[in-house]
Amino acid sequence: MNQNYIKPDNWSIIEEGFDVESVKSSESLFSIGNGAMGQRANFEETYTGESFQGSYIAGIYYPDKTKVGWWKNGYPKYFAKVLNAPNWIGIDVEINDENLDLKTCTEVNNFRRELNMKEGWYNRSFDATLQNGTEISVTIRRFLSLDLDEVGVINYEITPVNKDAKIVFKPYIDAGIHNEDTNWDEKFWETLEVKRTGNEGFVTAQTLKTNFKATTFMQNNIFIDGKNGNISPSNIKTGTDKIQFSFDVIIAQGQKTSIQKIGGYTVSLNHNDTLNAAETVIKTALAKGYDQMLAEQSDAWAKIWEMSDITIDGDVKAQQGIRFNIFQLNQTYLGKDSRLNIGPKGFTGEKYGGSTYWDTEAYCIPFYMATKDQQVARNLLTYRYNQLDKAIENAEKNLGFTNGAALYPMVTMNGEECHNEWEITHEEIHRNGAIAFAIYNYYRFTGDYSYIPEKGLEVLIGIARFWHQRANFSKEKNQFVILGVTGPNEYENNVNNNFYTNFIAKWCIDYTFEQIQKVALEYPSDHKRIVEKVKLSDAELQDWKKVSGNMYFPKSEKLGIYLQQDGFLDKELVLVKDLDKSQRPINQKWSWDRILRSPYIKQADVLQCFYFFEDHFSKEELQRNFEFYEAFTVHESSLSPCVHSIQAAKLDKMDMAYTFYLRTSRLDLDDYNKEVEEGCHITSMAGTWMSIVEGFGGMRVKDNTLHFSPKIPKEWTGYTFKINFRNQILKVIVNHTKTQFELEGTKNMTLFVNGESVLVNANLLTNA
Amino acid sequence: MNQNYIKPDNWSIIEEGFDVESVKSSESLFSIGNGAMGQRANFEETYTGESFQGSYIAGIYYPDKTKVGWWKNGYPKYFAKVLNAPNWIGIDVEINDENLDLKTCTEVNNFRRELNMKEGWYNRSFDATLQNGTEISVTIRRFLSLDLDEVGVINYEITPVNKDAKIVFKPYIDAGIHNEDTNWDEKFWETLEVKRTGNEGFVTAQTLKTNFKATTFMQNNIFIDGKNGNISPSNIKTGTDKIQFSFDVIIAQGQKTSIQKIGGYTVSLNHNDTLNAAETVIKTALAKGYDQMLAEQSDAWAKIWEMSDITIDGDVKAQQGIRFNIFQLNQTYLGKDSRLNIGPKGFTGEKYGGSTYWDTEAYCIPFYMATKDQQVARNLLTYRYNQLDKAIENAEKNLGFTNGAALYPMVTMNGEECHNEWEITHEEIHRNGAIAFAIYNYYRFTGDYSYIPEKGLEVLIGIARFWHQRANFSKEKNQFVILGVTGPNEYENNVNNNFYTNFIAKWCIDYTFEQIQKVALEYPSDHKRIVEKVKLSDAELQDWKKVSGNMYFPKSEKLGIYLQQDGFLDKELVLVKDLDKSQRPINQKWSWDRILRSPYIKQADVLQCFYFFEDHFSKEELQRNFEFYEAFTVHESSLSPCVHSIQAAKLDKMDMAYTFYLRTSRLDLDDYNKEVEEGCHITSMAGTWMSIVEGFGGMRVKDNTLHFSPKIPKEWTGYTFKINFRNQILKVIVNHTKTQFELEGTKNMTLFVNGESVLVNANLLTNA
Repeated sequence: MNQNYIKPDNWSIIEEGFDVESVKSSESLFSIGNGAMGQRANFEETYTGESFQGSYIAGIYYPDKTKVGWWKNGYPKYFAKVLNAPNWIGIDVEINDENLDLKTCTEVNNFRRELNMKEGWYNRSFDATLQNGTEISVTIRRFLSLDLDEVGVINYEITPVNKDAKIVFKPYIDAGIHNEDTNWDEKFWETLEVKRTGNEGFVTAQTLKTNFKATTFMQNNIFIDGKNGNISPSNIKTGTDKIQFSFDVIIAQGQKTSIQKIGGYTVSLNHNDTLNAAETVIKTALAKGYDQMLAEQSDAWAKIWEMSDITIDGDVKAQQGIRFNIFQLNQTYLGKDSRLNIGPKGFTGEKYGGSTYWDTEAYCIPFYMATKDQQVARNLLTYRYNQLDKAIENAEKNLGFTNGAALYPMVTMNGEECHNEWEITHEEIHRNGAIAFAIYNYYRFTGDYSYIPEKGLEVLIGIARFWHQRANFSKEKNQFVILGVTGPNEYENNVNNNFYTNFIAKWCIDYTFEQIQKVALEYPSDHKRIVEKVKLSDAELQDWKKVSGNMYFPKSEKLGIYLQQDGFLDKELVLVKDLDKSQRPINQKWSWDRILRSPYIKQADVLQCFYFFEDHFSKEELQRNFEFYEAFTVHESSLSPCVHSIQAAKLDKMDMAYTFYLRTSRLDLDDYNKEVEEGCHITSMAGTWMSIVEGFGGMRVKDNTLHFSPKIPKEWTGYTFKINFRNQILKVIVNHTKTQFELEGTKNMTLFVNGESVLVNANLLTNA
Repeated sequence: MNQNYIKPDNWSIIEEGFDVESVKSSESLFSIGNGAMGQRANFEETYTGESFQGSYIAGIYYPDKTKVGWWKNGYPKYFAKVLNAPNWIGIDVEINDENLDLKTCTEVNNFRRELNMKEGWYNRSFDATLQNGTEISVTIRRFLSLDLDEVGVINYEITPVNKDAKIVFKPYIDAGIHNEDTNWDEKFWETLEVKRTGNEGFVTAQTLKTNFKATTFMQNNIFIDGKNGNISPSNIKTGTDKIQFSFDVIIAQGQKTSIQKIGGYTVSLNHNDTLNAAETVIKTALAKGYDQMLAEQSDAWAKIWEMSDITIDGDVKAQQGIRFNIFQLNQTYLGKDSRLNIGPKGFTGEKYGGSTYWDTEAYCIPFYMATKDQQVARNLLTYRYNQLDKAIENAEKNLGFTNGAALYPMVTMNGEECHNEWEITHEEIHRNGAIAFAIYNYYRFTGDYSYIPEKGLEVLIGIARFWHQRANFSKEKNQFVILGVTGPNEYENNVNNNFYTNFIAKWCIDYTFEQIQKVALEYPSDHKRIVEKVKLSDAELQDWKKVSGNMYFPKSEKLGIYLQQDGFLDKELVLVKDLDKSQRPINQKWSWDRILRSPYIKQADVLQCFYFFEDHFSKEELQRNFEFYEAFTVHESSLSPCVHSIQAAKLDKMDMAYTFYLRTSRLDLDDYNKEVEEGCHITSMAGTWMSIVEGFGGMRVKDNTLHFSPKIPKEWTGYTFKINFRNQILKVIVNHTKTQFELEGTKNMTLFVNGESVLVNANLLTNA
């Protein structure tokens, strides 16, 4: 594809000019979503060029039979796939009896896409000359309503430019879709009913095995020069999986005609009678009408931006990058539904399967905590609590653990593991640590301890038990070790004593131990209930402490660094800067064994440990470890650059911090890893947010108080961000000379800037 | 299945009684083969119970598209499968209008199978009562001719016992077969022609992609009371892939009728016109006739046994075990064709794919060297020489090596890699060492140096270059290390400094270096040719020596042992004897991560190193290492027990040596690893041979001379084996009181027994 083809703009993502090579990438970048459903930016009309069709409904998945070359015990039998859902956006268009297809038009000019992030809509426009010589001008707008989140709207408008034209709009719904990544070429949906009522069409289909039911619906109105033509379909075709209407319009050169298509899904997750629900929601949408729905969309996004916008002055690409990240996060997950989670590709692709990774706890929760009501983060924690039994079952049945030890899945949709590489599924166990850390982090940020006695402590105990059993005593070292793991740096597999994993294991046990003591003191009835439920004894607790108190951590005294794992220094330590550029990205150029034995790091997990547990290390230790590991990090994980940006800022390496900021914020827009056509990297976008708030802003929460140490890249003139801290909305305004604060409401707040206490008065601009 | 159901017998494998649970296991154990083709012991008549159909032709394979869950760079696109070939053994049988099927008979009595290893035939007999009340007595004999290796013969004889009977024999050929392990449910064969001439039927089919052509043929004659009835088919059915004749016979109670079916394959590997070749070979077989062919079969096997038999007195199970192993090896590979190799399942199953593993060099070559003409072993070496270019291409294109470094595939049919687990394909690189070792071993045993300047040196140079590049210098250790490998112990993956791998890497470089010097001196024109061809400089040789001269070997000074790999002693070192028996075999009970971090060893590779390079270590070192590693070895590799048997014998641990001998020799007969229904473990059978000759016999070759240090298990009264040592056939006779030698021919031989020189006179029994 044509990299760097996105035009810089403060509020919009813009593509100009039609390039067949960029279609699949743009389909990812211009995706739209509303938390409940989403779509890639596929064309409504026929397109016979290369395209990756995708429409997705939150929470609807399919357990595709596992495909592996060599079966290993403990693999999940089924792999939960994000499911391509029936297509409701399709509108075939005939112009003077020729089917419109940008691949076959003799000319396409003024092609332009715009994803307007401020108002939440996607536009596409172009002028085209068909093979029959008809020239047309086309403008399409599409949005998925935030308010009516089962509904999307398309306004598809055509003007014949050089002659009169007979235009046939043929909107359809098609449930005969497939997943690009199906393992066995099976169909995932079975159509139950195809129905038409007037201008409305319905296809009710059910997923095989999981039996999710979804009615996909459409309602169509034809307008001529902006007025409803009250045109009835001239033809209706219904097939096994499809319904298609034809609307004929004959208009003069220069006249406009448009079809307004309302469409979407009503699903059995929310309704018993999905067909009835579809009929109802169409009525609601029609009652509002297109203009009102568009206005409401703009208002709803304004509210989101009001709380979560980050402004950057003097650097349009940086501004566009952060807004794209915040926009996509909000398109993916709005926190309304505790059954849902944040898939790594959101609604922009189907790669990876599942919807929940450790990304949620390690990267996304801080963003949602600070930019939404704290209930949203609590919902994300509750999601794991609800899956605790399955995590215990996973550890027991698949991996041989006992006594209620819980291993959360690496990837999941419903609590069951759905990944099947042994080096990931069975060995990337650090994910358990992030889930415990998120509980700690939630309390640290929100001050809401109630989650722990109510739910969190059971999760912590399951996790602590896992680590206690997973470590073993090495007589050789006279310490506890953790063998055979894959750390967050997935460019190492089956290593011994991954520093990050050992550290978080010890931390989880210690933290759980402390919370048990605290709950015993402060919530004695919860303590009693839980201890009885999980059969926890003092003797067991003492056993835990033996492990956490004598954990081994690999280090080099000579270099003053912790070692990523045992033996790291045996590698051929050629720095990334000395590596031939033609060899990168190494994951596309090198065989796996070569990557594994190289010193190159996908994501530096020693530094991830320093990020999570900053207060356990000195700044000098950070500096030594950062300088050592940064030099070997290739950042081929989307989760990598943000942490480096934050730490570079802390270490006053501002040029580096800025470079990493651009890399994280424009990872997809500039397609750093050459894979955006598969979808956007949604979860790492929360890392971009952190790189401004925690990196440049230096925000930390210590002892129930906000701390800042603001810095600003030389490329910027200023930046602002907002934080919802314990139901107080604080705006932070930074430029090269000063930092200012604005606080909504009536209650003052004391915070710290570079270690100095500052009293911020409510509704008064305060200089730090 | 019903373990231990095989009756002990000196010369035959015998099953008595019909047990549906044992059918698949017996199909493996009673398999027959003649080096060119082979079959599982499937029933000729219809059988609707569980069965695993398999008929195989040497050298005919199919490149099945690789199936993996997660693609890694460097994986082979196609996986060469041992191909289930058209079925020629099928004979449907109708008795008084009922189809004979042992699954549906009301009674089956006196069911008996016998694989007569002395004469090379397989018998099956039973009495059955059909649902229509007819009682019959059936005897079937089948063999695959060693002399006419495209031909097999079946004599299927029926006697109605309680009434007259109309018997219809319906012999067929069916090319509509499939592989049990096909990745994509594709057909592997396409039928080109179905033809009938008189009592002969032909199906010519071609493998897809590889385009091997095979004509499968049959010729049928019906006998009544032993006389040819000259009966013509009453009916002939031809389908797309199948041809079937019907022969009707009406006989009285107590009369015998039989069908003699000649069948087999003529293939495009050997013939341009396979149909014509089939017609010719049928004529040849008919000219000989059944009785003569059976007599010749017996003679041919007598010749094989004459050279390779091992006798054991006083222990029928031990005797039966070793003969089963020798028999299967000879059924699989006779060394006639240098295009072929020794598949790990021979012709007894299709598991694993490919036909060539490191098993050939590490285990099989010693057996073939000592029991066949030395050309056979040389053919096996040449097989690798012929695939050197592909090994270089594999290292270069798939794994990034340069300068003619060769990495032989882990599994192959044609020189290309066809395995696709990264931890095996990319990391189990020790296979390269065994290929070099086999060259050394061939010269050591045969004294034929000519192979090295002619072909072997190029292979050695490719391998030495690989090791030179694969090692890297560790500044930390100030030595060369080899990171990220899987050793022969496949219960460890991606380990650093596997002792076996590091040792054999150093040895390969040193040995290659020495051979270059020797060839330069003794074969200067070959030296010049090779050096020019491979562009070898003195500077490069010096670089090699830097690596081999400063290789790191992990060890524990405290325990006086070499370490299997870095960090081995960090494991939780619970001995196998203390492991709960319900947990075994661990590869069927535990998840992969648990196996990997456990201390349990599939095959002890430190001991494998001691086996190959015995003279580099003292007996005390062997004892310490043996005692340490044996205690952690679970022997879940078929290749494991033989080495332990040999070393236990050397260490005078005779009870242990005997136990391991039984385990290796009766691995399949007693189904130790609960998997014999998938096929027999052919390559490890050569290890069984070694455990007697090298273990109990203590045979070694040193300085062109045979050495023995005979020992005998207390369970035996005596044993004998024969060795073809440099074209002299030596018989070794051992009992509890003495060792004797018989030497064929006219030339005397000096050998050593327990270090004492013994002159063995030709054709005279010599006492040592």
